[in-house]
Amino acid sequence: MKSYRKELWFNIPQRRAFVNITPEAERCLEESGIAEGLMLINAMHITASVFINDDEPGLHRDYEDWLEGLAPHEPVSRYRHNRTGEDNGDAHLKRQIMGREVVVAVTEGRLDFGPWERIFYGEFDGGRRKRVLVKIIGE
Amino acid sequence: MKSYRKELWFNIPQRRAFVNITPEAERCLEESGIAEGLMLINAMHITASVFINDDEPGLHRDYEDWLEGLAPHEPVSRYRHNRTGEDNGDAHLKRQIMGREVVVAVTEGRLDFGPWERIFYGEFDGGRRKRVLVKIIGE
Amino acid sequence: MKSYRKELWFNIPQRRAFVNITPEAERCLEESGIAEGLMLINAMHITASVFINDDEPGLHRDYEDWLEGLAPHEPVSRYRHNRTGEDNGDAHLKRQIMGREVVVAVTEGRLDFGPWERIFYGEFDGGRRKRVLVKIIGE
Repeated sequence: MKSYRKELWFNIPQRRAFVNITPEAERCLEESGIAEGLMLINAMHITASVFINDDEPGLHRDYEDWLEGLAPHEPVSRYRHNRTGEDNGDAHLKRQIMGREVVVAVTEGRLDFGPWERIFYGEFDGGRRKRVLVKIIGE
Repeated sequence: MKSYRKELWFNIPQRRAFVNITPEAERCLEESGIAEGLMLINAMHITASVFINDDEPGLHRDYEDWLEGLAPHEPVSRYRHNRTGEDNGDAHLKRQIMGREVVVAVTEGRLDFGPWERIFYGEFDGGRRKRVLVKIIGE
Repeated sequence: MKSYRKELWFNIPQRRAFVNITPEAERCLEESGIAEGLMLINAMHITASVFINDDEPGLHRDYEDWLEGLAPHEPVSRYRHNRTGEDNGDAHLKRQIMGREVVVAVTEGRLDFGPWERIFYGEFDGGRRKRVLVKIIGE
């Protein structure tokens, strides 16, 4: 069994954003030399997500509005978590909807994807350096 | 390490449905000959889910009502994504709640499940052929 | 390839609670002797979750309030599932938001975590003995 590990670093200036990280994931797979196995990609921070969906800007704005409706950023006093001095209580909730991680099949040296599947980093509390972990195991 | 791959195909006539795919997953595991490892099962389409819960029709109607409340199908003009000519904006949101994939432990040649765990395909934008990927790695 | 399996048992007296199970997961990893691979941790029951987030009591109360808003426990007649004699319809919905499972990278014999990542068991229908499965594969 082979294994491969890499960290992807982000520094998103705005509070929230979605970034297509499929090319980075494909580069990792190539570097790994693994042809058959599983790739785990997870946010290493608890106010961010990794998820798979469509690379369509209208959809991303729909996600933004929808998540803001389900877990509004303001008033920040709404969240007990923010009594610790944080203002990111909403980000911890939004990340649960969008998920921490995806696991992707690796087949014949490629990410085994349907036609529109793309991997995104979802930032809900930006303005600082944060990481995503790529771990691949297989042969 | 062994690996196994299969696509399961669906063509759900209605827009939304939940289909128990546990028997297909068990058949895949048997075909694979893998006794110890992990099974990934994921929707290959971004308006569908694979999830684990109870095979109880009342619960499935509860899910349907609840998801429709959280991300209504209509008015379709509600979603920017639908300006691309689609009418499935809601389906991309519903799928995030229910999830893209499950990973199931394989132990002694069986899906290592609790008493009520069953695997479902969740369709949120039916009326066409769509796929689920089953990937198993192990020994 | 090595594999390891263990069940963690819980009997939460109250209906809902979040329990930090990171120490148990670390103990499992140590017992497994696996240095490189993947750890799957999943609820074996369909009214409970395993998820990764912050070990901060204010945040846990925010989750509790938020989930209760998205899928209220009462009136229990609200859910068709409860016509089967259950009163846990809400728990099946809450668990979909928080997730069934997490997959964690294992690197150099350790859970490969960001600074604040901790694993939690989320109970949404307590008062009885329930289980979490830990499965590790790797080398």
